[in-house]
Amino acid sequence: MNVEYINPFIEASMSIINQTTGFNPKIGKLYIKNTPYKGDNLLILIGLTGKIQGSVVLSFSTEMACKIASAMMGGYTVTQLDELAKSAVGELCNMILGNTATLFSKKNIHIDITPPTILTGDNIELSIHQTVIVCVPLEFDDGSKIEIDISYRDK
Amino acid sequence: MNVEYINPFIEASMSIINQTTGFNPKIGKLYIKNTPYKGDNLLILIGLTGKIQGSVVLSFSTEMACKIASAMMGGYTVTQLDELAKSAVGELCNMILGNTATLFSKKNIHIDITPPTILTGDNIELSIHQTVIVCVPLEFDDGSKIEIDISYRDK
Repeated sequence: MNVEYINPFIEASMSIINQTTGFNPKIGKLYIKNTPYKGDNLLILIGLTGKIQGSVVLSFSTEMACKIASAMMGGYTVTQLDELAKSAVGELCNMILGNTATLFSKKNIHIDITPPTILTGDNIELSIHQTVIVCVPLEFDDGSKIEIDISYRDK
Repeated sequence: MNVEYINPFIEASMSIINQTTGFNPKIGKLYIKNTPYKGDNLLILIGLTGKIQGSVVLSFSTEMACKIASAMMGGYTVTQLDELAKSAVGELCNMILGNTATLFSKKNIHIDITPPTILTGDNIELSIHQTVIVCVPLEFDDGSKIEIDISYRDK
């Protein structure tokens, strides 16, 4: 695992989540996921090209996604994942990855990101071949978490 | 819908599917999908950056994916979506998008593609905001089909 490649994702996640929701999650223990792996009920997928080619999948339980959307909308109660709530969580992830790309550019590493694809479903399983998959768990005070799965090939 | 942007996807799909499986699907009627939309049981997601920013989602029923994987593996019987079968279908999509990028480059339109993310699940629904989503249905002789959903922002 190339720490130089993982730190910008962590730094951007912490900073953007704090700015947009007020939450202050802790970083859990990073680990490598093997393919295939199970996803939560709401996934936000953002592709990476340039020096780092791959994708980032942010995985939320329905409850966690509602909590994030509510915090982003000034405390407005969110009890189900409607399009507005999904769009808010998608925008959070877009901001995290946009900030990640800026942090990489400061290290002279150029990456481009795709717009987010937002996906809900049951029994979701993901397979990503020929890449490393590093999971960064973000742990919240109430025991809930968000998983950020970063898979990449170094070009 | 900018036809100049859609034709390379169609041309590459037809050519690569024919070369790798021997099938010769017909292009169905293109249409615009509204977000959110339902996905099939196997989705292959590939991101686009550069002049065209967005994503391509190729959607297969389990039966269709097994049929494609079987044809790619020289007729070897495939009855379930194991990792080998999913990898074969993922590679097909990777080849289609790689060929699409080459066709764009011949028009002096530069795009980059991400490695494929392969996803299975039930009751899948996709949301992609602030982009057009063009669906290209590929129809096979036996009535089965593959849907190619192209969503993009013109940079």
